[in-house]
Amino acid sequence: MTPYEIITHKRDGYPLSASEIDFFIQEYNNGKIPDYQMAALLMAIYFQGMNEEETGYLTRAFINSGSIIDLNDLPGRKVDKHSTGGVGDKISIILAPIVAAAGVYVPMITGRGLGHTGGTLDKLAAIPGFQIEYPINKFKDIVRKTGACLIGQTNDLAPVDKKVYALRDVTATVPSIPLIAASIMSKKIAAGIDALILDIKVGRGAFMRNLVSAQELARTLIQVGENHGIATTALLTDMNQPLGYAVGNWLEILECIECLQSRGPADLMQIVFRLAGLMIFLAGNVASASDGEEAAKHLIRNGAAWDKFLQIVHAQGGDISFLQQTNKFPLSKQTAEVSARQAGWIYKIDALEIGLTCVSLGAGRIKITDPIDPKAGILLKVKPGDTVEKDQVLAIIQTDKSEVLSSAVDRVEKAIIIADEKPAPSPLILQLMDKSS
Amino acid sequence: MTPYEIITHKRDGYPLSASEIDFFIQEYNNGKIPDYQMAALLMAIYFQGMNEEETGYLTRAFINSGSIIDLNDLPGRKVDKHSTGGVGDKISIILAPIVAAAGVYVPMITGRGLGHTGGTLDKLAAIPGFQIEYPINKFKDIVRKTGACLIGQTNDLAPVDKKVYALRDVTATVPSIPLIAASIMSKKIAAGIDALILDIKVGRGAFMRNLVSAQELARTLIQVGENHGIATTALLTDMNQPLGYAVGNWLEILECIECLQSRGPADLMQIVFRLAGLMIFLAGNVASASDGEEAAKHLIRNGAAWDKFLQIVHAQGGDISFLQQTNKFPLSKQTAEVSARQAGWIYKIDALEIGLTCVSLGAGRIKITDPIDPKAGILLKVKPGDTVEKDQVLAIIQTDKSEVLSSAVDRVEKAIIIADEKPAPSPLILQLMDKSS
Repeated sequence: MTPYEIITHKRDGYPLSASEIDFFIQEYNNGKIPDYQMAALLMAIYFQGMNEEETGYLTRAFINSGSIIDLNDLPGRKVDKHSTGGVGDKISIILAPIVAAAGVYVPMITGRGLGHTGGTLDKLAAIPGFQIEYPINKFKDIVRKTGACLIGQTNDLAPVDKKVYALRDVTATVPSIPLIAASIMSKKIAAGIDALILDIKVGRGAFMRNLVSAQELARTLIQVGENHGIATTALLTDMNQPLGYAVGNWLEILECIECLQSRGPADLMQIVFRLAGLMIFLAGNVASASDGEEAAKHLIRNGAAWDKFLQIVHAQGGDISFLQQTNKFPLSKQTAEVSARQAGWIYKIDALEIGLTCVSLGAGRIKITDPIDPKAGILLKVKPGDTVEKDQVLAIIQTDKSEVLSSAVDRVEKAIIIADEKPAPSPLILQLMDKSS
Repeated sequence: MTPYEIITHKRDGYPLSASEIDFFIQEYNNGKIPDYQMAALLMAIYFQGMNEEETGYLTRAFINSGSIIDLNDLPGRKVDKHSTGGVGDKISIILAPIVAAAGVYVPMITGRGLGHTGGTLDKLAAIPGFQIEYPINKFKDIVRKTGACLIGQTNDLAPVDKKVYALRDVTATVPSIPLIAASIMSKKIAAGIDALILDIKVGRGAFMRNLVSAQELARTLIQVGENHGIATTALLTDMNQPLGYAVGNWLEILECIECLQSRGPADLMQIVFRLAGLMIFLAGNVASASDGEEAAKHLIRNGAAWDKFLQIVHAQGGDISFLQQTNKFPLSKQTAEVSARQAGWIYKIDALEIGLTCVSLGAGRIKITDPIDPKAGILLKVKPGDTVEKDQVLAIIQTDKSEVLSSAVDRVEKAIIIADEKPAPSPLILQLMDKSS
């Protein structure tokens, strides 16, 4: 068994055995297989794919490169949620306190943003003082005490995935379903959870552009999760339009506060409640997902979720006075309004273009090492289906980078399409998938 | 234009532009693009292929990484020959003196053996004193003086190809027609020749296992050659059986001597005369390829080709007394006979297995750095279509490695298939292809 033979097998379309995959990943992790042979294997996997068994072996090999968190001393089922990433996707930050308030442990390991999609971690890091790195014991302490803790990827969990991902990122081998699945699931399984909700975003602002590829990804993630003993359910949701009104890290925290205080936008809350209901149900705390959804709505209405949020932020070192008096937060140096050139209906808002413009304002990253400006972003004032008058404000742009402001105004104006007719309503929740799908 | 974008274009099946290919090859050559990005691009090319234009751009980019030999001060057309490699393929060593004796300049840059196929260079290096490395000026001097010179690849010609080939060799991206074509043709074009004969081997002992892929390779090589102003013709020849009787470096030199002294085996001489005729015709020295073939036969019969061979070997430092008194050459420490287990017809001789067994005897290389034993090899005593008695000697095995001798006898015995019926004759020359094909 040589690296060359393993690459050749995959290149020629044969499934790899568990021992071939273990050998390749282990030897790559300890530096004995060089990057160029891994790059060749990754591109061969991109073209030839991997079947269910191979994807499982790859996930297991990733897990075995690090440690596994033992959460068994926390009573009850531990439930996490993962989103494949979208524009304005702040759902985890609203969801975690709701589900924790329902008495479910939510040990959430989440990610930074890259490219046009934002990252939960960058949004949380906008809260002054909020800590996103903890040793595992401290992480478990916070989960035990508050019911939830949201941290970044630790170096202990599936460390070889980090090395493989960095290579995929520069060799154009990111968009491969088995590679995506092994990357996501290895970290989730190593985190010691019992159940997982996946929010698979579909559309122009998402990684998966069409329903068929999103279904294939969902099916693969569910298979890998279930084969490793994790109850896994996927919700496929639309990501052609940005979620909610706010895109940009602190702007999205402000929107999360509104959501947790019963003033959230309908589109965002529809998905939040659906996911919360599923998580509470998967934890075994209610009889059905719709009972879970009712519980979630109740926990928003009675303020329990908002209190839980403050408790979690405080436990993670965040200064909650910024959440209670949001005008304490500094403003961007530059602000500009985008206005309607004509009256009509908001026909669509291009999520990809809004996301990319946000990166140009300083709110996101092109390279993983790029700094983030938490203040920067776009606050939309309209949603598809709204009517607008000529010169009505469509969006407000915030940045410290004066040199990009006018081009950003242009781009956002073009991204918001105004038409003479009302757009047909399009569903936000596309499909629920589980192991029986 | 970034390496990432170029990999993505090829991965997604778009043709690469000349500037994309130039950029990628130049930056790889000067170390700015790392091996892992080249490995990803090579695997994407393996799957997506390259069209005629792209293959031409790649060849040109390889050429531009080094210098081009100027042979214009030698009068007349300079003609070279390239074989894709086979078992017992000593054709170049017989061909070069015949064609040079016909008054054609043959500046031949040839290769070492790797895997089951032997290399012309290793066979020549078996002649005591024979030099296979010369600076370009000295190479030209020998061509001018004797009509031919046979040397190894110099570092001046298409040097980036050497780097790319070494990477292909460890990333399972060798068997890609555009990559093979650019590798072969860049070195031939840089060598300053006017015309090129390709001997494309087809069958179990060859790189191209079937006629369709051999035709595709021939078509690509011809296109690239003609687009760069080199008259290019390809002969597709059978490589299911070893060529001639001798496999192994010094054994093949002995067979070349027989061929040049009018005592060569029919199969070998059929291809030699056909290729020689084409080369003499392409040089413009005769009116047709069949006239060229007649001239070649005459030059063997009258001893001119043999004299030319001695002249070339002497000019390259070889001790011709070993060619004149071949018993001066040392013998292997171990010799064994392979005998027929039954009477019957020789049905076939597996070229691949004979080639691989030869490597085990010390006659070839698995890695490019492996040493070669010039004495080691297999001398076949039969050809398909021959009748044999039980216990008749089928082959003689020579090696200094006593530990491999018995397994080699076994392998050769199994590689020579004896049947109760005479095999149907199979053609040795399969197809002639040129730019009009």
